[in-house]
Amino acid sequence: MIAMASSVTDLLRTTGPVDLAAIDARSTPGFDDDKDAALAATAQLEPELADLQERLFAGGRAGTTERRVLLLLQGMDTAGKGGTLRKVAGLMDPQGLTVTAFKKPTDEELQHDFLWRIGPRLPQPGMVGVFDRSHYEDVLIGRVRQLADDVEIERRYGAINEFEQQFVDSGGVIVKCFLHVDAETQAERLAERLEDPTKHWKYNPGDLDERALWAEYQQAYEIALERCSTDAAPWHVVPAGRKWYRNWAVGVMLLDALRGLDLQWPPADFDVAAEQARLAASR
Amino acid sequence: MIAMASSVTDLLRTTGPVDLAAIDARSTPGFDDDKDAALAATAQLEPELADLQERLFAGGRAGTTERRVLLLLQGMDTAGKGGTLRKVAGLMDPQGLTVTAFKKPTDEELQHDFLWRIGPRLPQPGMVGVFDRSHYEDVLIGRVRQLADDVEIERRYGAINEFEQQFVDSGGVIVKCFLHVDAETQAERLAERLEDPTKHWKYNPGDLDERALWAEYQQAYEIALERCSTDAAPWHVVPAGRKWYRNWAVGVMLLDALRGLDLQWPPADFDVAAEQARLAASR
Repeated sequence: MIAMASSVTDLLRTTGPVDLAAIDARSTPGFDDDKDAALAATAQLEPELADLQERLFAGGRAGTTERRVLLLLQGMDTAGKGGTLRKVAGLMDPQGLTVTAFKKPTDEELQHDFLWRIGPRLPQPGMVGVFDRSHYEDVLIGRVRQLADDVEIERRYGAINEFEQQFVDSGGVIVKCFLHVDAETQAERLAERLEDPTKHWKYNPGDLDERALWAEYQQAYEIALERCSTDAAPWHVVPAGRKWYRNWAVGVMLLDALRGLDLQWPPADFDVAAEQARLAASR
Repeated sequence: MIAMASSVTDLLRTTGPVDLAAIDARSTPGFDDDKDAALAATAQLEPELADLQERLFAGGRAGTTERRVLLLLQGMDTAGKGGTLRKVAGLMDPQGLTVTAFKKPTDEELQHDFLWRIGPRLPQPGMVGVFDRSHYEDVLIGRVRQLADDVEIERRYGAINEFEQQFVDSGGVIVKCFLHVDAETQAERLAERLEDPTKHWKYNPGDLDERALWAEYQQAYEIALERCSTDAAPWHVVPAGRKWYRNWAVGVMLLDALRGLDLQWPPADFDVAAEQARLAASR
Protein backbone atom coordinates (compact mmCIF):
# COMPACT_ATOMS: atom_id res chain seq x y z
CA MET A 1 0.00 0.00 0.00
CA ILE A 2 2.62 2.49 1.07
CA ALA A 3 4.44 2.17 -2.23
CA MET A 4 1.32 3.39 -4.03
CA ALA A 5 1.11 6.52 -1.98
CA SER A 6 2.46 9.21 -4.24
CA SER A 7 0.70 7.81 -7.27
CA VAL A 8 -2.71 8.39 -5.65
CA THR A 9 -1.95 12.05 -5.12
CA ASP A 10 -0.94 12.26 -8.77
CA LEU A 11 -3.90 10.21 -9.98
CA LEU A 12 -6.50 12.39 -8.28
CA ARG A 13 -4.94 15.76 -9.13
CA THR A 14 -6.91 17.83 -11.60
CA THR A 15 -5.45 20.14 -14.22
CA GLY A 16 -7.49 21.93 -16.84
CA PRO A 17 -11.21 21.47 -17.43
CA VAL A 18 -13.07 19.01 -15.20
CA ASP A 19 -16.08 16.92 -16.18
CA LEU A 20 -17.47 15.60 -12.92
CA ALA A 21 -20.19 13.57 -14.59
CA ALA A 22 -17.45 11.52 -16.25
CA ILE A 23 -15.87 10.53 -12.93
CA ASP A 24 -17.42 7.47 -11.30
CA ALA A 25 -17.98 8.39 -7.65
CA ARG A 26 -17.71 4.73 -6.67
CA SER A 27 -14.41 4.17 -8.44
CA THR A 28 -11.23 3.54 -6.45
CA PRO A 29 -8.29 4.90 -8.43
CA GLY A 30 -4.99 3.50 -7.21
CA PHE A 31 -6.62 0.93 -4.95
CA ASP A 32 -7.27 -2.53 -6.34
CA ASP A 33 -8.47 -4.32 -3.25
CA ASP A 34 -11.62 -4.47 -1.12
CA LYS A 35 -13.04 -2.63 1.89
CA ASP A 36 -11.26 -4.68 4.54
CA ALA A 37 -7.95 -4.15 2.81
CA ALA A 38 -8.62 -0.41 2.64
CA LEU A 39 -9.47 -0.19 6.34
CA ALA A 40 -6.25 -2.05 7.15
CA ALA A 41 -4.22 0.12 4.79
CA THR A 42 -5.68 3.28 6.34
CA ALA A 43 -4.81 2.10 9.85
CA GLN A 44 -1.30 1.35 8.60
CA LEU A 45 -0.84 5.02 7.70
CA GLU A 46 -0.99 6.01 11.36
CA PRO A 47 2.58 5.31 12.55
CA GLU A 48 4.24 7.33 9.80
CA LEU A 49 1.60 10.08 10.03
CA ALA A 50 2.21 10.25 13.78
CA ASP A 51 5.99 10.40 13.37
CA LEU A 52 5.90 13.12 10.72
CA GLN A 53 3.24 15.12 12.53
CA GLU A 54 5.33 15.04 15.70
CA ARG A 55 8.39 16.26 13.81
CA LEU A 56 6.32 19.09 12.36
CA PHE A 57 4.85 19.97 15.75
CA ALA A 58 8.31 19.81 17.36
CA GLY A 59 9.62 22.29 14.82
CA GLY A 60 6.72 24.62 15.57
CA ARG A 61 7.31 24.44 19.31
CA ALA A 62 11.07 24.91 18.87
CA GLY A 63 10.52 27.77 16.45
CA THR A 64 12.71 26.10 13.85
CA THR A 65 10.15 25.70 11.10
CA GLU A 66 7.62 27.73 9.19
CA ARG A 67 6.08 24.60 7.69
CA ARG A 68 2.38 23.85 8.19
CA VAL A 69 -0.20 21.79 6.43
CA LEU A 70 -3.76 22.63 5.47
CA LEU A 71 -6.18 19.87 4.54
CA LEU A 72 -9.13 21.53 2.83
CA LEU A 73 -12.33 19.51 2.39
CA GLN A 74 -15.15 20.48 0.08
CA GLY A 75 -18.10 18.49 -1.21
CA MET A 76 -21.85 18.39 -1.59
CA ASP A 77 -23.94 17.55 1.49
CA THR A 78 -23.37 13.92 2.55
CA ALA A 79 -20.09 13.70 0.61
CA GLY A 80 -18.43 12.91 3.91
CA LYS A 81 -16.47 15.92 5.09
CA GLY A 82 -17.27 15.10 8.71
CA GLY A 83 -16.53 11.42 8.32
CA THR A 84 -13.20 12.12 6.64
CA LEU A 85 -12.32 14.46 9.47
CA ARG A 86 -13.16 11.86 12.10
CA LYS A 87 -11.37 9.00 10.38
CA VAL A 88 -8.36 10.76 8.85
CA ALA A 89 -7.69 13.79 11.03
CA GLY A 90 -8.56 11.45 13.91
CA LEU A 91 -5.39 9.49 13.10
CA MET A 92 -3.33 12.47 14.26
CA ASP A 93 -2.36 13.94 17.61
CA PRO A 94 -5.03 16.50 18.58
CA GLN A 95 -2.34 18.75 20.07
CA GLY A 96 -1.01 19.47 16.61
CA LEU A 97 -4.36 19.80 14.91
CA THR A 98 -6.79 22.66 14.41
CA VAL A 99 -10.21 22.01 12.90
CA THR A 100 -12.36 24.78 11.49
CA ALA A 101 -15.89 24.24 10.22
CA PHE A 102 -16.94 27.26 8.19
CA LYS A 103 -20.61 28.13 8.48
CA LYS A 104 -22.75 30.78 6.86
CA PRO A 105 -20.83 34.04 7.34
CA THR A 106 -21.83 36.24 10.24
CA ASP A 107 -22.98 39.81 9.75
CA GLU A 108 -19.54 41.01 10.80
CA GLU A 109 -17.81 38.67 8.38
CA LEU A 110 -20.05 39.84 5.55
CA GLN A 111 -18.84 43.38 6.09
CA HIS A 112 -15.32 42.32 5.11
CA ASP A 113 -13.71 40.72 2.07
CA PHE A 114 -14.57 37.01 1.84
CA LEU A 115 -11.00 36.04 2.76
CA TRP A 116 -11.01 38.13 5.95
CA ARG A 117 -12.32 35.31 8.09
CA ILE A 118 -10.07 32.69 6.49
CA GLY A 119 -6.59 34.03 7.19
CA PRO A 120 -6.78 33.81 11.01
CA ARG A 121 -7.89 30.17 10.75
CA LEU A 122 -4.90 29.05 8.67
CA PRO A 123 -2.64 26.67 10.63
CA GLN A 124 0.31 28.20 12.44
CA PRO A 125 3.85 26.87 11.92
CA GLY A 126 4.10 23.29 13.15
CA MET A 127 0.38 22.65 12.91
CA VAL A 128 -1.93 20.69 10.67
CA GLY A 129 -5.18 22.56 9.99
CA VAL A 130 -8.33 21.06 8.56
CA PHE A 131 -10.99 23.16 6.87
CA ASP A 132 -14.49 21.67 6.73
CA ARG A 133 -15.72 23.93 3.93
CA SER A 134 -13.62 27.00 3.19
CA HIS A 135 -13.23 30.15 1.13
CA TYR A 136 -14.42 28.07 -1.83
CA GLU A 137 -17.98 28.42 -0.57
CA ASP A 138 -17.76 32.00 -1.77
CA VAL A 139 -17.44 30.79 -5.38
CA LEU A 140 -19.82 27.84 -4.91
CA ILE A 141 -22.96 28.81 -3.01
CA GLY A 142 -21.81 32.36 -3.71
CA ARG A 143 -22.11 31.71 -7.44
CA VAL A 144 -25.15 29.42 -7.41
CA ARG A 145 -27.17 31.62 -5.09
CA GLN A 146 -25.81 34.85 -6.60
CA LEU A 147 -24.70 36.11 -3.20
CA ALA A 148 -22.33 38.48 -5.00
CA ASP A 149 -22.40 40.03 -8.46
CA ASP A 150 -20.66 38.43 -11.45
CA VAL A 151 -17.68 40.77 -11.37
CA GLU A 152 -17.02 39.99 -7.74
CA ILE A 153 -17.35 36.22 -8.27
CA GLU A 154 -14.89 36.45 -11.17
CA ARG A 155 -12.45 38.42 -9.03
CA ARG A 156 -12.53 35.79 -6.32
CA TYR A 157 -10.88 33.00 -8.32
CA GLY A 158 -7.76 35.10 -8.74
CA ALA A 159 -7.92 36.31 -5.16
CA ILE A 160 -8.07 32.71 -3.93
CA ASN A 161 -5.08 31.71 -6.05
CA GLU A 162 -3.07 34.64 -4.74
CA PHE A 163 -4.10 33.93 -1.15
CA GLU A 164 -3.12 30.27 -1.42
CA GLN A 165 0.14 31.15 -3.17
CA GLN A 166 1.05 33.43 -0.26
CA PHE A 167 0.32 30.67 2.22
CA VAL A 168 2.55 28.28 0.28
CA ASP A 169 5.29 30.90 -0.08
CA SER A 170 5.28 31.36 3.69
CA GLY A 171 5.90 27.66 4.35
CA GLY A 172 2.44 26.16 4.00
CA VAL A 173 1.32 23.20 1.95
CA ILE A 174 -2.31 22.74 0.96
CA VAL A 175 -4.08 19.47 0.23
CA LYS A 176 -7.36 20.39 -1.46
CA CYS A 177 -9.88 17.57 -1.72
CA PHE A 178 -13.21 17.67 -3.46
CA LEU A 179 -15.17 14.71 -2.14
CA HIS A 180 -17.15 13.60 -5.15
CA VAL A 181 -20.51 11.86 -4.84
CA ASP A 182 -23.27 11.50 -7.38
CA ALA A 183 -26.87 12.63 -6.92
CA GLU A 184 -28.16 9.12 -6.32
CA THR A 185 -25.62 8.48 -3.56
CA GLN A 186 -26.65 11.74 -1.93
CA ALA A 187 -30.29 10.66 -2.07
CA GLU A 188 -29.43 7.34 -0.41
CA ARG A 189 -27.49 9.04 2.35
CA LEU A 190 -30.17 11.67 2.97
CA ALA A 191 -32.74 8.86 3.15
CA GLU A 192 -30.58 7.12 5.78
CA ARG A 193 -30.45 10.31 7.80
CA LEU A 194 -34.21 10.64 7.69
CA GLU A 195 -34.77 7.01 8.66
CA ASP A 196 -32.41 7.04 11.63
CA PRO A 197 -33.33 9.25 14.63
CA THR A 198 -29.65 9.29 15.68
CA LYS A 199 -28.90 11.04 12.39
CA HIS A 200 -31.72 13.59 12.36
CA TRP A 201 -29.37 16.25 13.73
CA LYS A 202 -27.34 16.01 10.53
CA TYR A 203 -30.38 16.75 8.39
CA ASN A 204 -31.66 20.17 7.47
CA PRO A 205 -34.64 20.79 5.18
CA GLY A 206 -32.45 23.33 3.40
CA ASP A 207 -30.32 20.42 2.18
CA LEU A 208 -33.06 19.54 -0.31
CA ASP A 209 -33.24 23.12 -1.54
CA GLU A 210 -29.54 22.92 -2.38
CA ARG A 211 -30.01 19.45 -3.87
CA ALA A 212 -32.55 20.92 -6.27
CA LEU A 213 -29.66 22.97 -7.66
CA TRP A 214 -27.41 19.92 -8.14
CA ALA A 215 -26.46 20.74 -11.74
CA GLU A 216 -25.65 24.34 -10.88
CA TYR A 217 -23.42 23.25 -7.98
CA GLN A 218 -21.62 20.69 -10.14
CA GLN A 219 -20.93 23.41 -12.65
CA ALA A 220 -19.74 25.81 -9.97
CA TYR A 221 -17.39 23.10 -8.68
CA GLU A 222 -16.09 22.41 -12.17
CA ILE A 223 -15.28 26.07 -12.66
CA ALA A 224 -13.60 26.38 -9.24
CA LEU A 225 -11.60 23.18 -9.75
CA GLU A 226 -10.40 24.40 -13.12
CA ARG A 227 -9.66 27.99 -12.17
CA CYS A 228 -8.06 27.25 -8.81
CA SER A 229 -6.04 24.08 -9.38
CA THR A 230 -2.61 25.70 -9.42
CA ASP A 231 0.93 24.37 -9.22
CA ALA A 232 1.15 25.81 -5.73
CA ALA A 233 -2.15 24.35 -4.57
CA PRO A 234 -3.65 21.74 -6.88
CA TRP A 235 -7.13 20.33 -6.48
CA HIS A 236 -7.85 16.62 -6.13
CA VAL A 237 -11.15 14.97 -7.01
CA VAL A 238 -11.65 12.12 -4.54
CA PRO A 239 -14.34 9.60 -5.48
CA ALA A 240 -16.33 9.45 -2.25
CA GLY A 241 -19.09 6.98 -3.01
CA ARG A 242 -17.15 4.38 -1.04
CA LYS A 243 -16.19 5.77 2.36
CA TRP A 244 -13.32 3.36 2.85
CA TYR A 245 -11.68 4.49 -0.37
CA ARG A 246 -12.26 8.16 0.40
CA ASN A 247 -10.63 7.86 3.82
CA TRP A 248 -7.68 5.89 2.53
CA ALA A 249 -7.08 8.28 -0.37
CA VAL A 250 -7.24 11.43 1.78
CA GLY A 251 -4.99 9.80 4.38
CA VAL A 252 -2.42 8.95 1.74
CA MET A 253 -2.51 12.47 0.33
CA LEU A 254 -2.02 13.92 3.78
CA LEU A 255 0.91 11.58 4.35
CA ASP A 256 2.37 12.52 0.99
CA ALA A 257 2.16 16.19 1.93
CA LEU A 258 3.98 15.58 5.21
CA ARG A 259 6.62 13.47 3.48
CA GLY A 260 7.24 16.26 1.03
CA LEU A 261 8.25 18.60 3.85
CA ASP A 262 11.44 16.61 4.61
CA LEU A 263 10.88 17.17 8.32
CA GLN A 264 13.86 16.96 10.66
CA TRP A 265 13.90 16.95 14.43
CA PRO A 266 14.86 20.38 15.77
CA PRO A 267 18.45 20.46 16.99
CA ALA A 268 19.13 21.09 20.69
CA ASP A 269 19.59 24.78 21.44
CA PHE A 270 21.41 23.92 24.68
CA ASP A 271 24.58 22.04 25.70
CA VAL A 272 23.41 18.47 26.15
CA ALA A 273 26.38 17.31 28.23
CA ALA A 274 26.15 20.33 30.51
CA GLU A 275 22.42 19.68 31.08
CA GLN A 276 23.10 16.01 31.80
CA ALA A 277 25.59 17.09 34.45
CA ARG A 278 23.10 19.54 35.96
CA LEU A 279 20.42 16.84 36.02
CA ALA A 280 22.77 14.35 37.68
CA ALA A 281 23.59 16.94 40.33
CA SER A 282 19.86 17.34 41.05
CA ARG A 283 19.24 13.65 41.84
CA MET B 1 -13.21 -2.98 33.19
CA ILE B 2 -16.23 -0.85 32.41
CA ALA B 3 -17.88 -1.82 35.66
CA MET B 4 -14.97 -0.29 37.56
CA ALA B 5 -15.38 3.04 35.87
CA SER B 6 -17.15 5.16 38.40
CA SER B 7 -15.14 3.77 41.28
CA VAL B 8 -11.92 5.12 39.76
CA THR B 9 -13.35 8.61 39.60
CA ASP B 10 -14.33 8.26 43.24
CA LEU B 11 -11.03 6.65 44.25
CA LEU B 12 -8.88 9.43 42.82
CA ARG B 13 -11.02 12.36 43.99
CA THR B 14 -9.42 14.49 46.70
CA THR B 15 -11.26 16.21 49.53
CA GLY B 16 -9.55 18.05 52.32
CA PRO B 17 -5.79 18.22 52.92
CA VAL B 18 -3.54 16.39 50.45
CA ASP B 19 -0.18 14.78 51.21
CA LEU B 20 1.36 14.08 47.85
CA ALA B 21 4.44 12.40 49.33
CA ALA B 22 2.12 9.74 50.73
CA ILE B 23 0.72 8.85 47.31
CA ASP B 24 2.78 6.31 45.38
CA ALA B 25 3.13 7.70 41.86
CA ARG B 26 3.51 4.16 40.50
CA SER B 27 0.38 2.83 42.18
CA THR B 28 -2.64 1.84 40.07
CA PRO B 29 -5.78 2.44 42.19
CA GLY B 30 -8.77 0.60 40.81
CA PHE B 31 -6.73 -1.37 38.30
CA ASP B 32 -5.46 -4.78 39.31
CA ASP B 33 -3.99 -6.00 36.07
CA ASP B 34 -0.87 -5.35 33.95
CA LYS B 35 0.14 -2.98 31.18
CA ASP B 36 -1.25 -5.04 28.31
CA ALA B 37 -4.59 -5.30 30.05
CA ALA B 38 -4.62 -1.52 30.61
CA LEU B 39 -3.84 -0.78 26.97
CA ALA B 40 -6.68 -3.08 25.94
CA ALA B 41 -9.05 -1.58 28.50
CA THR B 42 -8.20 1.94 27.30
CA ALA B 43 -8.88 0.98 23.69
CA GLN B 44 -12.18 -0.51 24.81
CA LEU B 45 -13.30 2.90 26.09
CA GLU B 46 -13.35 4.27 22.55
CA PRO B 47 -16.75 3.07 21.26
CA GLU B 48 -18.72 4.46 24.19
CA LEU B 49 -16.63 7.65 24.28
CA ALA B 50 -17.30 8.09 20.56
CA ASP B 51 -21.02 7.51 20.95
CA LEU B 52 -21.41 9.92 23.86
CA GLN B 53 -19.18 12.55 22.30
CA GLU B 54 -21.24 12.43 19.11
CA ARG B 55 -24.46 12.86 21.10
CA LEU B 56 -22.92 15.85 22.86
CA PHE B 57 -21.67 17.33 19.58
CA ALA B 58 -25.05 16.72 17.94
CA GLY B 59 -26.76 18.64 20.73
CA GLY B 60 -24.33 21.52 20.25
CA ARG B 61 -24.93 21.64 16.50
CA ALA B 62 -28.69 21.36 16.95
CA GLY B 63 -28.66 24.01 19.65
CA THR B 64 -30.50 21.71 22.05
CA THR B 65 -27.85 21.48 24.78
CA GLU B 66 -25.72 23.73 26.91
CA ARG B 67 -23.63 20.78 28.09
CA ARG B 68 -19.86 20.79 27.54
CA VAL B 69 -16.93 19.04 29.10
CA LEU B 70 -13.57 20.41 30.18
CA LEU B 71 -10.68 18.04 30.83
CA LEU B 72 -8.06 20.02 32.74
CA LEU B 73 -4.56 18.58 32.99
CA GLN B 74 -1.92 19.78 35.41
CA GLY B 75 1.35 18.26 36.53
CA MET B 76 5.06 18.80 36.92
CA ASP B 77 7.24 18.68 33.80
CA THR B 78 7.32 15.14 32.35
CA ALA B 79 4.14 14.13 34.24
CA GLY B 80 2.64 13.40 30.84
CA LYS B 81 0.14 16.11 29.98
CA GLY B 82 1.05 15.84 26.29
CA GLY B 83 0.99 12.05 26.30
CA THR B 84 -2.40 11.97 28.00
CA LEU B 85 -3.72 14.38 25.44
CA ARG B 86 -2.44 12.27 22.55
CA LYS B 87 -3.68 8.97 23.94
CA VAL B 88 -6.95 9.99 25.63
CA ALA B 89 -8.16 13.07 23.76
CA GLY B 90 -6.92 11.23 20.67
CA LEU B 91 -9.68 8.68 21.23
CA MET B 92 -12.26 11.32 20.38
CA ASP B 93 -13.50 12.95 17.19
CA PRO B 94 -11.35 16.03 16.52
CA GLN B 95 -14.42 17.90 15.24
CA GLY B 96 -15.82 18.01 18.75
CA LEU B 97 -12.57 18.76 20.50
CA THR B 98 -10.68 21.94 21.32
CA VAL B 99 -7.19 21.75 22.79
CA THR B 100 -5.56 24.71 24.49
CA ALA B 101 -1.97 24.68 25.73
CA PHE B 102 -1.48 27.61 28.08
CA LYS B 103 1.98 29.16 27.92
CA LYS B 104 3.62 31.97 29.82
CA PRO B 105 1.14 34.85 29.68
CA THR B 106 1.71 37.50 27.02
CA ASP B 107 2.19 41.16 27.91
CA GLU B 108 -1.43 41.80 26.95
CA GLU B 109 -2.67 38.93 29.11
CA LEU B 110 -0.65 40.19 32.05
CA GLN B 111 -2.49 43.49 31.89
CA HIS B 112 -5.74 41.70 32.73
CA ASP B 113 -7.01 39.54 35.56
CA PHE B 114 -5.50 36.06 35.42
CA LEU B 115 -8.84 34.55 34.36
CA TRP B 116 -9.23 36.93 31.42
CA ARG B 117 -7.46 34.63 29.00
CA ILE B 118 -9.19 31.50 30.28
CA GLY B 119 -12.87 32.25 29.68
CA PRO B 120 -12.68 32.48 25.89
CA ARG B 121 -10.93 29.09 25.77
CA LEU B 122 -13.64 27.22 27.68
CA PRO B 123 -15.46 24.69 25.48
CA GLN B 124 -18.66 25.85 23.81
CA PRO B 125 -21.90 23.85 24.16
CA GLY B 126 -21.51 20.44 22.55
CA MET B 127 -17.73 20.46 22.74
CA VAL B 128 -15.07 18.73 24.78
CA GLY B 129 -12.21 21.06 25.69
CA VAL B 130 -8.82 20.02 26.98
CA PHE B 131 -6.56 22.38 28.91
CA ASP B 132 -2.85 21.54 28.92
CA ARG B 133 -2.02 23.68 31.96
CA SER B 134 -4.64 26.21 33.00
CA HIS B 135 -5.57 29.02 35.39
CA TYR B 136 -3.99 26.89 38.12
CA GLU B 137 -0.56 28.00 36.93
CA ASP B 138 -1.42 31.34 38.51
CA VAL B 139 -1.47 29.73 41.96
CA LEU B 140 1.40 27.32 41.19
CA ILE B 141 4.29 29.04 39.44
CA GLY B 142 2.53 32.23 40.49
CA ARG B 143 2.98 31.25 44.14
CA VAL B 144 6.38 29.56 43.90
CA ARG B 145 7.95 32.32 41.83
CA GLN B 146 6.05 35.06 43.65
CA LEU B 147 4.69 36.47 40.41
CA ALA B 148 1.95 38.16 42.43
CA ASP B 149 1.80 39.33 46.03
CA ASP B 150 0.39 37.15 48.83
CA VAL B 151 -2.96 38.90 48.98
CA GLU B 152 -3.51 38.39 45.28
CA ILE B 153 -2.50 34.72 45.41
CA GLU B 154 -4.94 34.18 48.29
CA ARG B 155 -7.71 35.90 46.35
CA ARG B 156 -7.20 33.62 43.39
CA TYR B 157 -8.31 30.39 45.05
CA GLY B 158 -11.74 31.83 45.67
CA ALA B 159 -11.84 33.43 42.24
CA ILE B 160 -11.06 30.07 40.65
CA ASN B 161 -13.80 28.32 42.61
CA GLU B 162 -16.30 30.96 41.61
CA PHE B 163 -15.20 30.82 37.97
CA GLU B 164 -15.50 27.04 37.85
CA GLN B 165 -18.87 27.12 39.64
CA GLN B 166 -20.19 29.51 36.98
CA PHE B 167 -18.99 27.19 34.24
CA VAL B 168 -20.74 24.26 35.88
CA ASP B 169 -23.90 26.28 36.49
CA SER B 170 -24.03 27.12 32.80
CA GLY B 171 -23.98 23.47 31.73
CA GLY B 172 -20.29 22.57 31.97
CA VAL B 173 -18.64 19.67 33.70
CA ILE B 174 -14.97 19.78 34.67
CA VAL B 175 -12.63 16.83 35.06
CA LYS B 176 -9.56 18.15 36.87
CA CYS B 177 -6.57 15.80 36.86
CA PHE B 178 -3.29 16.34 38.63
CA LEU B 179 -0.83 13.93 37.01
CA HIS B 180 1.35 12.89 39.91
CA VAL B 181 4.95 11.82 39.45
CA ASP B 182 7.78 11.72 41.96
CA ALA B 183 11.09 13.52 41.65
CA GLU B 184 13.00 10.37 40.69
CA THR B 185 10.58 9.57 37.87
CA GLN B 186 10.98 13.12 36.60
CA ALA B 187 14.76 12.72 36.65
CA GLU B 188 14.51 9.49 34.64
CA ARG B 189 12.26 11.10 32.07
CA LEU B 190 14.40 14.22 31.75
CA ALA B 191 17.44 11.97 31.31
CA GLU B 192 15.62 10.16 28.50
CA ARG B 193 14.88 13.44 26.81
CA LEU B 194 18.52 14.44 27.00
CA GLU B 195 19.73 11.11 25.66
CA ASP B 196 17.37 11.01 22.68
CA PRO B 197 17.84 13.64 19.94
CA THR B 198 14.21 13.11 18.87
CA LYS B 199 13.17 14.37 22.32
CA HIS B 200 15.50 17.36 22.63
CA TRP B 201 12.69 19.69 21.54
CA LYS B 202 10.78 18.75 24.68
CA TYR B 203 13.64 19.80 26.92
CA ASN B 204 14.30 23.27 28.20
CA PRO B 205 17.14 24.18 30.56
CA GLY B 206 14.56 26.07 32.59
CA ASP B 207 12.99 22.71 33.47
CA LEU B 208 15.88 22.08 35.86
CA ASP B 209 15.41 25.49 37.47
CA GLU B 210 11.82 24.52 38.26
CA ARG B 211 12.93 21.06 39.38
CA ALA B 212 15.19 22.71 41.95
CA LEU B 213 11.99 24.05 43.50
CA TRP B 214 10.33 20.62 43.66
CA ALA B 215 9.28 20.85 47.30
CA GLU B 216 7.83 24.31 46.81
CA TYR B 217 5.81 23.15 43.82
CA GLN B 218 4.52 20.10 45.64
CA GLN B 219 3.37 22.38 48.45
CA ALA B 220 1.73 24.79 46.01
CA TYR B 221 -0.09 21.86 44.43
CA GLU B 222 -1.22 20.57 47.81
CA ILE B 223 -2.68 23.94 48.67
CA ALA B 224 -4.42 24.30 45.31
CA LEU B 225 -5.80 20.76 45.46
CA GLU B 226 -7.17 21.39 48.93
CA ARG B 227 -8.54 24.85 48.34
CA CYS B 228 -10.02 24.20 44.91
CA SER B 229 -11.43 20.68 45.14
CA THR B 230 -15.10 21.62 45.31
CA ASP B 231 -18.34 19.71 44.93
CA ALA B 232 -18.87 21.46 41.62
CA ALA B 233 -15.37 20.74 40.34
CA PRO B 234 -13.40 18.22 42.38
CA TRP B 235 -9.70 17.52 41.86
CA HIS B 236 -8.35 14.06 41.13
CA VAL B 237 -4.81 12.94 41.84
CA VAL B 238 -3.81 10.51 39.10
CA PRO B 239 -0.71 8.44 39.81
CA ALA B 240 1.25 8.98 36.59
CA GLY B 241 4.41 6.99 37.12
CA ARG B 242 2.95 4.31 34.86
CA LYS B 243 1.74 5.84 31.62
CA TRP B 244 -0.66 3.01 30.84
CA TYR B 245 -2.45 3.48 34.16
CA ARG B 246 -2.55 7.27 33.77
CA ASN B 247 -4.13 7.04 30.33
CA TRP B 248 -6.67 4.44 31.37
CA ALA B 249 -7.67 6.36 34.51
CA VAL B 250 -8.09 9.69 32.70
CA GLY B 251 -10.02 7.95 29.94
CA VAL B 252 -12.39 6.39 32.46
CA MET B 253 -12.92 9.71 34.24
CA LEU B 254 -13.69 11.41 30.93
CA LEU B 255 -16.16 8.66 30.09
CA ASP B 256 -17.74 8.96 33.53
CA ALA B 257 -18.21 12.67 32.97
CA LEU B 258 -19.92 12.08 29.64
CA ARG B 259 -22.12 9.35 31.11
CA GLY B 260 -23.21 11.74 33.82
CA LEU B 261 -24.67 14.12 31.24
CA ASP B 262 -27.43 11.67 30.25
CA LEU B 263 -27.02 12.71 26.63
CA GLN B 264 -29.94 12.21 24.26
CA TRP B 265 -30.01 12.60 20.50
CA PRO B 266 -31.58 15.92 19.52
CA PRO B 267 -35.14 15.48 18.26
CA ALA B 268 -35.96 16.35 14.66
CA ASP B 269 -37.07 19.96 14.28
CA PHE B 270 -38.73 19.14 10.96
CA ASP B 271 -41.51 16.85 9.71
CA VAL B 272 -39.72 13.61 8.90
CA ALA B 273 -42.46 12.17 6.67
CA ALA B 274 -42.78 15.42 4.74
CA GLU B 275 -39.02 15.49 4.15
CA GLN B 276 -39.03 11.87 3.03
CA ALA B 277 -41.70 12.76 0.48
CA ARG B 278 -39.70 15.76 -0.73
CA LEU B 279 -36.58 13.61 -1.05
CA ALA B 280 -38.46 10.93 -2.99
CA ALA B 281 -39.74 13.60 -5.36
CA SER B 282 -36.18 14.76 -6.00
CA ARG B 283 -34.90 11.33 -7.18
